[in-house]
Amino acid sequence: MTTASICTIGDEILIGQITDTNSAKIAVELGKAGIRVTRMVSVGDSRPEIENMLTELLGSSDVVIVTGGLGPTKDDVTKNVIFGLSGSRRYVTDEEQLSIIHRILSSRGLDVLESNRRQASVPENCDVIPNRLGTAPVTVTRFPEGRFGHKATLYSLPGVPYEALGAMPDVIKDICASYMLAPIYHKTIMTYGIAESALAEKISAWEESLPSGFSLAYLPDPVKGVALRLSVYGEKPADDVLEGLLSGLRAILGDAIYSEQEDTLQAVVGKLLSGSGKTVSTAESCTGGKIASLITSVAGASAYYLGSVVSYSESVKESVLGVRHEIISRHGVVSPECVAAMAEGVRRLTGSDFSVATSGYAGPDGNPAGLVWVGLSSASSTKTASFSFRNDRLRNIERFSASALDALRRFILSENA
Amino acid sequence: MTTASICTIGDEILIGQITDTNSAKIAVELGKAGIRVTRMVSVGDSRPEIENMLTELLGSSDVVIVTGGLGPTKDDVTKNVIFGLSGSRRYVTDEEQLSIIHRILSSRGLDVLESNRRQASVPENCDVIPNRLGTAPVTVTRFPEGRFGHKATLYSLPGVPYEALGAMPDVIKDICASYMLAPIYHKTIMTYGIAESALAEKISAWEESLPSGFSLAYLPDPVKGVALRLSVYGEKPADDVLEGLLSGLRAILGDAIYSEQEDTLQAVVGKLLSGSGKTVSTAESCTGGKIASLITSVAGASAYYLGSVVSYSESVKESVLGVRHEIISRHGVVSPECVAAMAEGVRRLTGSDFSVATSGYAGPDGNPAGLVWVGLSSASSTKTASFSFRNDRLRNIERFSASALDALRRFILSENA
Repeated sequence: MTTASICTIGDEILIGQITDTNSAKIAVELGKAGIRVTRMVSVGDSRPEIENMLTELLGSSDVVIVTGGLGPTKDDVTKNVIFGLSGSRRYVTDEEQLSIIHRILSSRGLDVLESNRRQASVPENCDVIPNRLGTAPVTVTRFPEGRFGHKATLYSLPGVPYEALGAMPDVIKDICASYMLAPIYHKTIMTYGIAESALAEKISAWEESLPSGFSLAYLPDPVKGVALRLSVYGEKPADDVLEGLLSGLRAILGDAIYSEQEDTLQAVVGKLLSGSGKTVSTAESCTGGKIASLITSVAGASAYYLGSVVSYSESVKESVLGVRHEIISRHGVVSPECVAAMAEGVRRLTGSDFSVATSGYAGPDGNPAGLVWVGLSSASSTKTASFSFRNDRLRNIERFSASALDALRRFILSENA
Repeated sequence: MTTASICTIGDEILIGQITDTNSAKIAVELGKAGIRVTRMVSVGDSRPEIENMLTELLGSSDVVIVTGGLGPTKDDVTKNVIFGLSGSRRYVTDEEQLSIIHRILSSRGLDVLESNRRQASVPENCDVIPNRLGTAPVTVTRFPEGRFGHKATLYSLPGVPYEALGAMPDVIKDICASYMLAPIYHKTIMTYGIAESALAEKISAWEESLPSGFSLAYLPDPVKGVALRLSVYGEKPADDVLEGLLSGLRAILGDAIYSEQEDTLQAVVGKLLSGSGKTVSTAESCTGGKIASLITSVAGASAYYLGSVVSYSESVKESVLGVRHEIISRHGVVSPECVAAMAEGVRRLTGSDFSVATSGYAGPDGNPAGLVWVGLSSASSTKTASFSFRNDRLRNIERFSASALDALRRFILSENA
C-alpha cells in the first residue's frame, strides 16, 4: 500500500498559537484515494530541522506532503530546503503561476512587488502544480529509487488552509498517476440518531452481503452523526449494483439517513425547505442562538429562514413568544408543554411554515444537566421530543442543536409526506 | 534551554477523523514555563512505530510528552512500549490512582471491572502523577544521561483532552524540579480593535523602556484580538514595578484593553453586566445568532442575558423589532438607521438595560461583502459603528460578532462612566 507522511511547518504551530487543522483534512483526502498516512509531524521555521525531517520522512514513506513556510515574509525557508534536496542549481520562473499572481493582486488593486514575483520562482528540478487560489505554487520533487531506497515524491503546498486543500485534488491525481494506484470509488451516507454500535448491529447482515471488493467504514462524529463510507477499489461500480445496495440500506435505516451527498444537517434542512418553498423559524432557550447560527452558516439561508427568538429569560418566553404564565409555573421551562408553546409562539410571530424550539439544561447547573426538550410546529401539528447527553456545557449545546435540527428534518419530511 | 517534543497517538488522528488539539494546548503550557517545543508528531496505534518514535524523540529533546493510547479498549499499547523502554520487569498497582478509579466509577453508578483496575497498574520503574479527572494515570519515566546522551524524561498522559490538560500543571512542576528551570512569571493583557502592527507602533516606546529581564510577545487572533504576553524570568516582579508598567500600558491603550485575566470578550461583557446588575439583549441579522451563542456559552449568562431576536427577514425586523418600513425602504437593511432601530426595538421588546444589533453582508453575496453595521442602545443613548473585513462567510460572521461584542463592551463602559 502506498504510504504518506504529512509535515506542517511553522513556529506558530510549535508554540501552540495555532492548531494544525491542515493535516487532518489532507489525511482524509489521502485516505479516500487509498493512501495510508503513517506519520504527521510539525517542525519550526528552521532550515536544518526542516531538512532533517523531510529527509527522514522521504526515507520512510512513499509520499511526503509538506505545508507552510512558503509565504513572502517567511524567507521561503521550505523552498530553500527543497532547492537543496532536489539538487537544483538555479531557480526558474513558472509563467503560469506568475500570471495567476498578477491576476490575484490586480483584482485586489495591489501592485506586484518583487516579493510577490519571487513566489513564482521554483527550483529547476521541481515540477509545478499551479495554485489558483493564492500566490505560492505547489512544487513536486521526484526522487528516483536510488536516493531513498524507494521511489519517493515530495509535494510542497502553501500553508493557508484553503489553498492547501484546494490543491489536494491535483496532488492526489499526480500521486495516483505516479504510483499507478487503483482508483477508489467512495459513497458516503450520513446518518443521525443511531449510535455507532447499534448501527453496526442493525446493518450487520447487509454489511456481510456486500460484494467482494466493497468495504465499509464507520465515521462517528458527535455533531454530524455517523457517516457510513462505502469504498470500492477499481472503477465506479455499475449504477444498478450501487443502487441495489443503497436501496437495501435505505430500507433498513429509513429516515436516519439524512444525506447521500455529505451534506450537513443544516444544509439538508435548507434543501428540504427551498425545494418546497417553505420557511422556518426557531425559538431557542438552552441552545442560545446556536441553531440559528448553524442554519445561517449556509449561504442563501435568507430564502427560507425567517429568524429566531432566543428567549433566555422567562419574561421573553412570555412577552415575545406568548408562552402562558401557567405553563411555566405548572410544568417549568424545561418541559414538553413549554417547548410546544415556544414553537407555536415563534411560528405565529414570524408567520413561518415550520418552527423548532429548545429548552433544556446545558450545564453545569440544572437537573438533570444534559436534558433537552425540542418542540416542533406546523400549521397542522405540534410535536415534542427529548434527548439526553452527558457532556460539558459547550458540547451539550452542540449536541442539543444537532438533535433539534435532525428532529426538524424528520418533522418536515413527515409533514411533506 | 530545555527542549520538549510532543507525540500524540491514535489511528483516528492519522486518518483525519479527529484533529489533534492536545498538542497546541500542551505547547502553550510548556512555552509559559520557558520550555521550547521543537517537534510535534502523531503516530498510529502500532507498537513498533510508537517505540521507534519515542526512542527518536528522547534522543533529540530533554522532555517528551506523549498522549493517547492508554484507554481500556486500546490494548494499552503506549503503556506496553513504556514498560519496555523503562526496563521494567513487572507492573505494580498505584493505590492512589486505584482509589480515584473507584471513586469516579461509583459516582457514575458503575462497577469497577478488571479492565478499569488494570489502568492503575504501571511499569515498576515509572513514577506516577495521579489523574484526578479520569482513570489512566500519568507515568513519568526518567532516563539517566547514559541512555540517550543527555538526561531525558518521558511523560505519558491520557488522550482525553481535558484529562491531558488537567495533568499539565503537575507535569510542568515536575519538569521544573527535574531540570532546575528558572520560574517564569507571565502577565497577559487582552486587547481588541488595534491591528498587531499598529499596536506595536503605539507601544514601541513603552516596550523599549521595559526593565531588563522582561520580554513581550504579541499573540494575534482573529476573534480574540491581540494578546500581549509580558514574561519575566525568575521570581514574580515586585507588585509596584508590575503595576507601574501596566498603568503605563493602560494610559496608552485605554479601552482597547479588555482583560488582564485572559477572559474572552463575552466573559468580560458578562462581568461588566453582573457587576452593575444590568441586563442586555441582542438583535442579529447577518450574525444569525452567533452573538447570542457566544454570550450564552458563558455559564451563568441567564443572570444578565434576556434574549435575542434573530431577524433574518425584513418582515421580522418590522413586525417583531418594530423597525419602521420607511427606514428599510429609504436606507436599506444594512445601514446605521436600521441597526439603530433594531437595537432600540429589541431593548423595548425585552426590557433590557442595554442592547446590541447587527446587519451586514457576510458573503459571498452582498455589496460590499464583509461590511457590518452595529447598533447599540441604552435608556440614555443610541450609537452606531461599522466594521469591514475581507474573509469568507464563516470567518466574517465570527469577526462581525467579536466586533459587536467589543463595541457593546465599550458602550457599557462609557455609559457606566
